[in-house]
Formats: sequence, C-alpha cells, structure tokens
Amino acid sequence: MGSLSPKLPETSQFKPLDPEELRKHAHRMVDFIADYYQNIETYPVLTQVQPGYLPARLPQTAPYLPESLDTILDDIGKEIIPGMTHWQSPNFFAFFPATISTAAFVGEMLCTCFNSVGFNWLASPASTELEMVVIDWLANMLKLPKTFMFSGSGGGVIQNTSSEAILVTLVAARDQVLAKTGYRNLGNLVVYGSDQTHSTFTKASKLAGINPSNIRLLPTSLDTGFALSPVTLRTALAADVASGLVPLYLCATVGTTSTTAIDPIETLADVANNYGIWMHVDAAYGGSACICPEFRDYLNGIERADSLSLSPHKWLLSYLDCCCLWVRKPSLLVNALSTNPEYLSNKQSESSSVVDFKDWQVGTGRRFKSLRLWMIMRSYGVANLQSHIRRHVHMAKMFEGFVKSDPRFEIVVPSKFALVCFRLISPTNKDGSGQTETLNQKLLELVNSTGQIYMTHTKVSGEYVLRFAVGATLTEERHVVSAWKLIKEGADAVCP
Amino acid sequence: MGSLSPKLPETSQFKPLDPEELRKHAHRMVDFIADYYQNIETYPVLTQVQPGYLPARLPQTAPYLPESLDTILDDIGKEIIPGMTHWQSPNFFAFFPATISTAAFVGEMLCTCFNSVGFNWLASPASTELEMVVIDWLANMLKLPKTFMFSGSGGGVIQNTSSEAILVTLVAARDQVLAKTGYRNLGNLVVYGSDQTHSTFTKASKLAGINPSNIRLLPTSLDTGFALSPVTLRTALAADVASGLVPLYLCATVGTTSTTAIDPIETLADVANNYGIWMHVDAAYGGSACICPEFRDYLNGIERADSLSLSPHKWLLSYLDCCCLWVRKPSLLVNALSTNPEYLSNKQSESSSVVDFKDWQVGTGRRFKSLRLWMIMRSYGVANLQSHIRRHVHMAKMFEGFVKSDPRFEIVVPSKFALVCFRLISPTNKDGSGQTETLNQKLLELVNSTGQIYMTHTKVSGEYVLRFAVGATLTEERHVVSAWKLIKEGADAVCP
Repeated sequence: MGSLSPKLPETSQFKPLDPEELRKHAHRMVDFIADYYQNIETYPVLTQVQPGYLPARLPQTAPYLPESLDTILDDIGKEIIPGMTHWQSPNFFAFFPATISTAAFVGEMLCTCFNSVGFNWLASPASTELEMVVIDWLANMLKLPKTFMFSGSGGGVIQNTSSEAILVTLVAARDQVLAKTGYRNLGNLVVYGSDQTHSTFTKASKLAGINPSNIRLLPTSLDTGFALSPVTLRTALAADVASGLVPLYLCATVGTTSTTAIDPIETLADVANNYGIWMHVDAAYGGSACICPEFRDYLNGIERADSLSLSPHKWLLSYLDCCCLWVRKPSLLVNALSTNPEYLSNKQSESSSVVDFKDWQVGTGRRFKSLRLWMIMRSYGVANLQSHIRRHVHMAKMFEGFVKSDPRFEIVVPSKFALVCFRLISPTNKDGSGQTETLNQKLLELVNSTGQIYMTHTKVSGEYVLRFAVGATLTEERHVVSAWKLIKEGADAVCP
Repeated sequence: MGSLSPKLPETSQFKPLDPEELRKHAHRMVDFIADYYQNIETYPVLTQVQPGYLPARLPQTAPYLPESLDTILDDIGKEIIPGMTHWQSPNFFAFFPATISTAAFVGEMLCTCFNSVGFNWLASPASTELEMVVIDWLANMLKLPKTFMFSGSGGGVIQNTSSEAILVTLVAARDQVLAKTGYRNLGNLVVYGSDQTHSTFTKASKLAGINPSNIRLLPTSLDTGFALSPVTLRTALAADVASGLVPLYLCATVGTTSTTAIDPIETLADVANNYGIWMHVDAAYGGSACICPEFRDYLNGIERADSLSLSPHKWLLSYLDCCCLWVRKPSLLVNALSTNPEYLSNKQSESSSVVDFKDWQVGTGRRFKSLRLWMIMRSYGVANLQSHIRRHVHMAKMFEGFVKSDPRFEIVVPSKFALVCFRLISPTNKDGSGQTETLNQKLLELVNSTGQIYMTHTKVSGEYVLRFAVGATLTEERHVVSAWKLIKEGADAVCP
C-alpha cells in the first residue's frame, strides 16, 4: 500500500463473524425482507429498466474501506429493487413461478449457517443421512415404488437443477453402454425426447458428448395434447437401429414447459424397455402435483423407468436450487461419477457402508440441501402441501373459465395443472396465424408494460400462445380476477 | 382421504408465506444461529456418530399434519447437531475450510428472499448486471487484464463449483475444435493436468465425453514442489501430436488441494499457446490470496490463459456455493451452451444487447448469486479482505514454526498459503515410509477422536502427509496454539 492509501484502523482486529454483530445484522435483514414481502405488490412485476442501467449507477471498483449495512440497504432499495423482475409478486404469472415459504426460508438460513461441505458421509453425516430421509419421504408422498427408495433397492439425491439431473443420468447410461462396447461407440449413441422436451435436454446431451446429429426431438401435435407418442418413438428407434446406431436414453416429461403436456409413461416404458434404453422422467413441474391422489395416475408406469426428477423449487414451496432425482440403480451413477482422491479418503467410504453424495453429482462440494425440504414437510404436513397444489389448480381453472366466457379468446390446450394456454382469436381471419401472432404479441406487450402483471408466451406447432401460470406463493383469487380484468381491457385496446 | 385420516382444520386458509409469520420465525432462527456460532466450540469438531444413526431416529414418512417450529428446532439440537462435522468450528483444520461472514450471511438471506430465477437478462436484470459488476470488481482486485473483464473484451460468471467451471470451459474448448474438425474428432482430443490437479478435472473430462485414455495426469515431484513442469507438458504434447492425437485443454492449478502447489502459469502458457490449446487456471483456493500484492505474482502470465476460476466460498468469506469464472472469449461459452426455446425468447436477448447467463452455465435457472459477494466487498472493503488473508497465512506460519521447533516432526513442503503439510518422522527408521504412514495415521486418528480438532491427510509421491489447514473464520491464534499442544501430546502417545 502506498502512503496515499486511506488508513484502516485496526485491520488486525477484523472479525467477520462476531456472533453478536451477526445477530444484529441478521435481525435487521429479517425486517427488511418481511417488509419486502409485505410491500411486494407496490412494485412493477416486470422491471422497466434498460440494459446497462446498473453498471452506470455503481462504482467501477470495490471500496477499499468498509461501508455500513445502512448504506448498502439504502442502495438495495434505490439501485437493485427497481431493476428486478419480482418473481415473488402475487401478480407474477410468467414461465413457471418459483414457489417459496416461511419454512423453507428458515430452513435455508440454517443450511447457510452450518455451511457444511458434505461431499462424503464423514464430512457431514447428518447432511447425508437427512437427505436420504427426505428423499424417501418425498418418494413415499409420490407413492414411488421401493425400487427408487433407500429403504428399498434404489435411492435419490438433491441436485441443483433438472439440467444436472438429466446430465448425470445420461452419463450413467452412456458409461454403462460404453463399458460393454468401448469408447469408440460414443458417436453412435442416440438420445430421444420430443419437440416439447425442455431445451436443457439438448444441452445436457451435447455436454455429455452425444453427437448433436443423434439428438432426436420427435414431433408432437395438438391431437395428442403435445404428448410424445409411443408409436413415433418406436418408429424412430427402429430406424436408428436399422442404420447401425445405438439407442441410449429417453427423456419423457410430465408437464412440459410450453403447455404442461404429459408424455404417457406407461406406454413409452413398453417401448423403452423393449429396446433396453434408459428412461428418464422429467417431472420438474408436474411431479409436485402427483402428491395428490387425483394426479398420481400421471406417474403410472414409473416403476419401469430408470430415473425420475422433480423440482420442489418450482411448486413445492422450496426456494432455488432444489431438484430431487431418484434412480433405480445408484451404482450406475457412482460408476460414472466417482472419484477417490487420497485427500478425501476415510474408513467409512472405503467400507462402502455409507453414501458419498459427491459420486451422485457433477461437483464435489455440496451444501446441507435437505434441511429446507425437511422443514417444509414437517412445518406444513402432507395435508397442507396437497391443499396448496389444489388451490393453484383451482385458480387456474377459474382463469380458464374466464377465458372460455369471452368469445374473443380461445383455450389452446385444456389446462391440466395450474397453467392456462390461451390466446385472442384474430377477428378478421380465424385461420390467419400471422395475424393472430401479431395480435397476441401486442396484447402481451401491453399488459406486461403496465407492470401490473407479468405473463409470457410460447409457440407450439408454430402457433403463438399466451401462458398464464398460477403458482406464486402469494397469489390469491383476487389477483387472478384482476389479471383477467387487465387482459380483457388489453383485448379491448388491441381489437378495437 | 379415508374417514380415519386425522382432520386438518381450514387447509383452504393455508398461507405458507404470511409476512408476519415469516418475520417471527426468521427472528427466532437468527437467535438460534447466533447462539450456534457462540457455542460452536462446545461441540466435537468431527462427529462421533455411526453410519445409519439418523434414519433410525426419524419417522419413515413425512407427517400428515403440521409440526411447530419449536418441535423442529428441538430435533435439530437433539438429532441433527450431534451428527454434524462442524465446518465452522475454529478448531476445524481439515481439507480447505469454508470461510463465512456476517455480510455473506445477510447477503444470502436477501438472495433467498428475492428468489429470482435469472436465466436471462429480462428475468432479472439487477441479478445479471450486479453479477457483471462484482465479477469486474473482483477481477480488479486480482489485477486481471481487461481481456477478462466486461469493461474490457471478456467477462465472467458465478458458477456453483470449480467442477462446473472446468466442465463448461472444457466443453467450450471442445466445441470450438469440433466445429472446425467435425464431431468424429472427439475421440482424439487430449486433456492435460498434473497428478496434483483436483480429481474433479478427471470427472469433468469424462462428463464431457473425452476418451478416458486421453486424460493425462502428468507426474510431479517434491523437487519442483509438486508443480507441473513445462518441460513435462511439452514432452507429453509432442508425443500426443506424434501419435495423431489432438491436444485440447490444460488445467493448471494455483494452490493444489494436497499441498497448495503452484503450477507456473507463465511458462506453462508458453507451451500451451505454442500448441494452441485452451489453458484454464484453477485457483479455487490460492486465487483468493492474490488480492494481496505479495501473492499476486502467482498469477503472472494469466493474460495468456483462456480462463480462470476462483472460489470465494473457500477463502473469501462467502458461503457455498460460489465459484467465479472469467473467460477471455465469452462467445465460445455461449456457442457451446446456448439454448433458445421460444418460451424464454424476448426482445432484449434477441438484440444481443444483454448477457443471458443461462448460456454460461450447465443449468437454466439460477439464483441472484452476486448479492453475497457484493455485500462482502462493500461491508469489509478490500483492506479488510487483505488483512483476513494475511491473518490466516500468519497463523499457518506460526504453526509451521511450532512443527519446525520439534525434532520429532518434519515439514514436507514449505507452506505457501495457509496450509501446513507435515508429519511425524518414524523414530526407528527415517526412510521407512510404511512405518511413517502407520505412525501418522495413528496420530491423526488419535487427535481427531478427541473431537477437539479435525485435521486430514493426503499422499504425495506415495508419502503419507498430515494437512493442517488454517482457514475457518472463527480461528484465532489461541486455537492454533491449542491444536499444536494436542498434536504434541498425540505424538507423545504414539511414539512413546
């Protein structure tokens, strides 16, 4: 440091984790956060800032000397909040909302507090074993077969995102085949999804070294509600086998992102099992609903799949990141992903009497991820979690009813969970899709620009569709009613 | 539900995010957490439970009805805490400790609160732009060249772990080569590290579809302090080229896990640049020290690397997960990782005027990760962060001095950061490594079994070494003094 540097008093006394300071600052932050949730409806849901707004308002370098929590909280109010899209607003109906809860919030605080790095059992036994417990609890709630449970012959793990769940199972499937046929076969492996499968499936396949020309996104159509047809799958498999390629992996979806389409697990499993390929079920969104008996049929046949993933951060009140992955043969994950450096070796791991979750995921380090889910399940109980799902589905049905009652609109696909896919019908030309697209784009821009709600769109079979996704934790019927009023006013404005 | 199911009153009134309940429960949790840190020295550092302890103590299924926060907090005290290895104990000297701070704690609370899913700019502009700001701030603190900064021609992103940083850069390098030479070349690509490179490098390479027989872990030795020699690298590259293989990627390390060895960036870059391969520098641990001028030389030559990663969750007071990755050519990451589904499309992304971080990482969804780092840098200032690094290095030097003062012990590799690699010398046979190993294993087991401290071991060049890593946030000189006293007493017991 040059002599012109400002003087810092007593840096040698720097105590970044004084428990009493933590107590004081964290209490302060609790009130800031409770106030944010209290006032959340006063903010525009979709931000109205322009690209580059923030770097222009902040210094170019970190400060040399400390700043107070007061100053920082002031800046959060002045600089950060105006640039946010408020995912927790009750008027957020975009994408799939990310549900949260008080129980998960305090669970996350505790996970942060412990900051244990549970790469293997010994590094944090409670973290590993509680994860095994909650994974089995959720499996029970979903009525999964024992073959997916630790208390049976399988098991599961909390990943950060569905992307990682798909990547690690795909690599497990890949390495099982390559172990038999040799690495040279990699370029012949083929993976299958539908044109509705989440884009991360293609990304994960490319990450895993699958030949991009061997990624099949099989066509779906409105006739089958955008579900993947087993006939289409069988035809594709037969053609690939006939060409000398090696079918590897199917990613089926329960609740696709565009329209919550549901691939038929049972009949797809017939085909997948027939060809001996790994079948993964991505139930990131729709899986949560399957804790209610009236939705559980969507998982029928799951006992014949190889793996299943579901993200409680979407619809089970957990914050990000939380994606539960179950597998029937954990040893295949471990074969593909295990590392055994000396600096992590210990008697328990060597005795194979324990689970080392580093061998079930991409990274090595991992947080005490199960605390949040454990606190959700205990604080609310299965009964309340079911009622939470039903409440969202009910509000979506209500919105669907509103749409049906207005002849200017149409429902594109019947709502199955808590998403409604609808659009304005072009008044001049009922088949003019170009015009329909422009009209609905205008409507979407108009309602989003008010800051009063945020909705998004998609395209299926080339058709532009508006998506109204109920799912923010704070959303109540009155918000859905107001949203519909705003959309109707928007329609008045764009179809005069 | 059958008629025997317990009755749940008013599930329709279930409000999982009542701001006043959140306020009450979160205040309660703050006190629980502050008390935990206050009392942390009273717990055995290394857990003393046996595998399977927890499932035996918990119900097999989730409760149907809610339980109170009181009940759950009781169970955390009775069932969870006894099964934890306390990473935040000031007596934790194992692996690399994971540093934390009050500023990061409250920053994490805020990140949790917003729960914005910033996959692209529009989904959360403040999240994307604050990440760009802090990535540049930290680059400035490290005196990285402008070619790694958003304010220059590069940029960076917060990943969860080094594993992901290595995976995404490796895939970017891979796809750049395959775009020119075709997918068929995948099996010929070769990657290079040393026998000291973190095991996740091998794992990431396998995930990316690199032929396992093309992963080179080049030998190092004590003579060069376990650093990778440029001569060794050049020889390996030449041999591979001569065999018709295609060198792709080098992972150099600043501060290896076993001994904090430092690969010579500058001279390795000569070789890497010569062969036109991607050079990644993994500075997960050691990089943090480079915010102090006296350590910055270890990054000399970084301007000729293609990417650099550093994990503030290791030594910059951040909680998990936080790994900063800088790249010189962000477009190569985006080329390899971008997806553009219609349901995420928006004007800003299409205009290419913004950064969409989903295209810089494995997953799609992501948290508001920059808040924690921003609050650390502002709350403490560069001055305190430097003093924090120096304090740990000073304590390690002090411990190294203790070891040197006792003729029964030897230092295996001189301490460079805050890790001391040492061991007992076998009294009967100074060269008998088998005996030395048994003796040091005994010592390690003895001191760890007391619960008073936790240390780990490694092996380098076949030699068993004890690792004493200073780095827990709460560690003070008195803890290091007591640890040494305990180790000396252990030595008295095992070498009578």
